[in-house]
Amino acid sequence: MASWLTIPPKSHFSLANIPFGIISANGSTTKVPAIAIGDYALDLSAFARAQGFSQLPAIQPHLNVFNQTTLNDFAALGRPIHRQVREYLQAVFKADTPYAALLKDNESLRSSALIPLSNVTNHLPMQIGDYTDFYAGLNHAYNVGVLFRGPDNALQPNYTHLPVGYHGRASSVVVSGTPIVRPSGQILANPTATPKVPLFSPCKKLDIELELAAFVSTSNKLGQPVSIDEAEDHIFGLVLMNDWSARDIQAWEYVPLGPFNAKNFATTITPWVVLIDALEPFRAEGLEPGSRDTLLPYLREKRADNSYNIRLEVDLKHAGGEVPTRISTTNATNLLFSFTQMVAHHTITGCNLRPGDLLGSGTISGKESGSQGSLLEQTNGGKEPITLADGTTKRVFLEDGDEVTLRAVAGSVDGQYVGFGNCVGRIEPAVQFSFSK
Amino acid sequence: MASWLTIPPKSHFSLANIPFGIISANGSTTKVPAIAIGDYALDLSAFARAQGFSQLPAIQPHLNVFNQTTLNDFAALGRPIHRQVREYLQAVFKADTPYAALLKDNESLRSSALIPLSNVTNHLPMQIGDYTDFYAGLNHAYNVGVLFRGPDNALQPNYTHLPVGYHGRASSVVVSGTPIVRPSGQILANPTATPKVPLFSPCKKLDIELELAAFVSTSNKLGQPVSIDEAEDHIFGLVLMNDWSARDIQAWEYVPLGPFNAKNFATTITPWVVLIDALEPFRAEGLEPGSRDTLLPYLREKRADNSYNIRLEVDLKHAGGEVPTRISTTNATNLLFSFTQMVAHHTITGCNLRPGDLLGSGTISGKESGSQGSLLEQTNGGKEPITLADGTTKRVFLEDGDEVTLRAVAGSVDGQYVGFGNCVGRIEPAVQFSFSK
Repeated sequence: MASWLTIPPKSHFSLANIPFGIISANGSTTKVPAIAIGDYALDLSAFARAQGFSQLPAIQPHLNVFNQTTLNDFAALGRPIHRQVREYLQAVFKADTPYAALLKDNESLRSSALIPLSNVTNHLPMQIGDYTDFYAGLNHAYNVGVLFRGPDNALQPNYTHLPVGYHGRASSVVVSGTPIVRPSGQILANPTATPKVPLFSPCKKLDIELELAAFVSTSNKLGQPVSIDEAEDHIFGLVLMNDWSARDIQAWEYVPLGPFNAKNFATTITPWVVLIDALEPFRAEGLEPGSRDTLLPYLREKRADNSYNIRLEVDLKHAGGEVPTRISTTNATNLLFSFTQMVAHHTITGCNLRPGDLLGSGTISGKESGSQGSLLEQTNGGKEPITLADGTTKRVFLEDGDEVTLRAVAGSVDGQYVGFGNCVGRIEPAVQFSFSK
Repeated sequence: MASWLTIPPKSHFSLANIPFGIISANGSTTKVPAIAIGDYALDLSAFARAQGFSQLPAIQPHLNVFNQTTLNDFAALGRPIHRQVREYLQAVFKADTPYAALLKDNESLRSSALIPLSNVTNHLPMQIGDYTDFYAGLNHAYNVGVLFRGPDNALQPNYTHLPVGYHGRASSVVVSGTPIVRPSGQILANPTATPKVPLFSPCKKLDIELELAAFVSTSNKLGQPVSIDEAEDHIFGLVLMNDWSARDIQAWEYVPLGPFNAKNFATTITPWVVLIDALEPFRAEGLEPGSRDTLLPYLREKRADNSYNIRLEVDLKHAGGEVPTRISTTNATNLLFSFTQMVAHHTITGCNLRPGDLLGSGTISGKESGSQGSLLEQTNGGKEPITLADGTTKRVFLEDGDEVTLRAVAGSVDGQYVGFGNCVGRIEPAVQFSFSK
C-alpha cells in the first residue's frame, strides 16, 4: 500500500498502521483526536468539520467523538466502528484514493489539518479509569523469582494457571516525554540487620519495566464477566509502556499486599494507540501455547497464536552522552498470557471494565543476556553493571539525567511497519525535603 | 443546636453533621448535590437556583459546583469553602436562623427542595479516579497474620513503620444498597495437596471488611509530595465502607503482587460524605500514639489525637430472617495510622492525588471477641461458626441472600449525632457459567 503522502520507509506510522491519539497543535491549548501517518498527524476534529468523513455513513451519528479531548468516546463505539474508520482513513491516504477531493486535492484542509509531528504536543490518549498491571512475562517473573527466592521457588504455584496481576495507579500514568522525578521513600539500608529499621532516602535502585499495555474499548456491566471468546472485542488497541519501579522501596513495602509506592510515582506510555486490528497480521504464538489445554475453561482461547510478533528495544542515554546505548532487545511473544486472557480473567468475578481502562502486560524479557526488560534482571540484582556505549560509563540502576527510550515495531517490510513510536522518560533529581532524615 | 426542622433525636444526620451526597428524586433521573438533615435531603441545586446561598459571598463565584452530578468540583474548592458552606447551612437550619426567608419561611422552596430521604435515590457521591486501600487496622492485621503465619510472624517488619496499602479497583465501588453478586474464580479445593491445581468455583468464603474511607478534596501535582502538616486539608470527608472479600480466591491469587480478583468485584460505600470538620469534635488517640516519635519525620503528626471516636457496628440478616444479628461492635480508634498519615505516605514518592480519590483505612477490628471487622477473624478462619439471632442459623462466611449492614456514628448526645447512615449489601447468587468446570 502506497500513499500520496510521502511516508519515510522506516516510519512506525505507515499506511498499514493508522494509530489514534490526542494532540494539540503547538501554540494551541485545544486537544483534539488525531491519527499519526508518516511524519504527520491528521487532526480528526478539523477533518470531520470539513466533511472528511462524508463517505463513511457508519460514523455519521457519532461524529461528536472527534470533538472530545480523549479517545474514550471513540473507543466506546466498539471494534466494528474502529475497523471501518481505520480502513476509511487508509483509503483517504492511499495513492489511488477514491476520496481525493476530501484531503489529497483539498490544499486548504491539508495545510490546516495535516500537521507535522514536530509541531504537535502529544497528550494522554484516554482518560484512564483504572490501570491494572499484569505479570505475564514468564521470563521476567522467573528471573525476578530467582533473585528473590532462588531457582527452585522462582515461580509461585498460581503463576501458570492465571495471569497474575494487581491494581496500579491511574493518576500518575503520563505520556511519553514527561520528566520522571526520582521518588523518595522508605528503604532498608541493611536488609539483613535485625531489627529491620528503614531510613528515608531518595530511591537508589530506580529501574524500568518494558511492557505493552492494552486500552479497553467497550465496558461490561458489574457482575457480568466477559467470556474469552468475546474478550478481544473489548480491546481498543495497544501502547508501549515503561512502568518505572523503585526496587529498594518495593523490597521493603511489598509484603503482604504488593507494590504500592514503588510504582505509583509514574508510568509512561506512548501517545499513539495502535488498534488491535492493525496488529492482526502479526499474530504469533506466545510462550507455552500447548499448555492452554490444561487451563481452566474460562481462559482457554480457540487460537494458539494469541500473542504478537512485536520487536522491542530499550535505549539508555546518560546525561552528556552522545549516543544512546541499546541495552535490551526482545519480542512481545515472551508472554505467557494474552491480553484476551487478561480481560477474561479480570472480569471473571464480575469486575466491570470501562472504556479507557489500561491493562499492562507485565515486564517482557527474553531468556538470553541482553533481552531482559528491566535493569534488575540485566544487572543480576544490581551486582553486574552494564557498560554504556562510551565504553566507560557503567550502570546498575538509573542515575539522574539518564534518558530511557523504549521502542516497539511489528512488520519487516519497508513502508509497511506498524510501530508504537518512542516511549521516553528522563530522570530528574529527587525532591529536596527540609526535615532531617 | 436545635433546628426548626423536626430531626429525630437519634438521627445520624443532626444539625451537627451536614453530610454531602448526590441524589435523584424518585421519578427523576437528574442527579444533584444534596445534604442530609434528619429525615430529609436538601437539593442544593434547587436551593442555589432559588438564591439560597445569597448570604454567603464566598461561594458566589462557584455556584456551578451545585449543578454537577458528582461532588468532585465542590470538593476541589478546598476545606475553607467546605467549612463555610457547612456552617452556613447549619445557620439556615437552626431554630433561630438569621436566614429564615431563604428556606424556613419559603414554603414553595421547602416543598420542592427539601425531600424526604425515603423519596430519594442515592448515588456515588464522587467520581473516583483512584481507590487505594490501606491496612492500618492493627488488630485486623495481627489477627489475619496469626491465621496465616502464626503469632510470631503475624505482622511484617514494615507494618509499624508505614501505612501498608495497595491500589484497589475504582470501577466497582458502589453505593450502599447495590446488590452484590457472589464472585466466581480460581480456588484451591485442597491447599495442602501437591501439585497445587485450582478449580473454578463460586467463592465459598465470601467475607466483609469493615472500614472507613476518606475522599480526597484537593490535588497535588505529580512529583510534589503533600507534607504531613498539610495532609488533612487534602481530605474532603469520610464514608463508611464494606470491602467485600473472596477469601478463597485471595488465598490462591495473592502471591506475590497482592489481592486482585478477590476484591475487584465490589466495594460498598455510604452515600453521604461526612466532612472532616464535622468529625473534629470527636478526635481521639488511635493505637500506640506514643510510637509516633519513632516514625520517620514525614509521618510524624503534631497531634496525638489523630484518630476519631466513631462507634462501628455490623449487622447480618439471613434470607427470611426476622431480625438482624449484631455480629460486631468496635471503634475507629483501632487504627495505627491516620488518614493524614496515609495522605503523606501515599504522596511521598510524588504520586498525585486527585479530587474524588478514595482512601480506605483497612479493616477495623478490636481485640476482643465480637469486635472484629471480618468474618475471617470472627470465625477463626472459618473454623468456629457464629450463631445468628434465631438461635439456629450458623455462619462462617456469607450465604446467598445474607444482608450485611454496617453502621458508624460519633457523638453521645441525642440530637447531636454525627453518623454515616447505613452501608448495606445483599448477596445474590453467582453467575451460572455454561462451560464445564
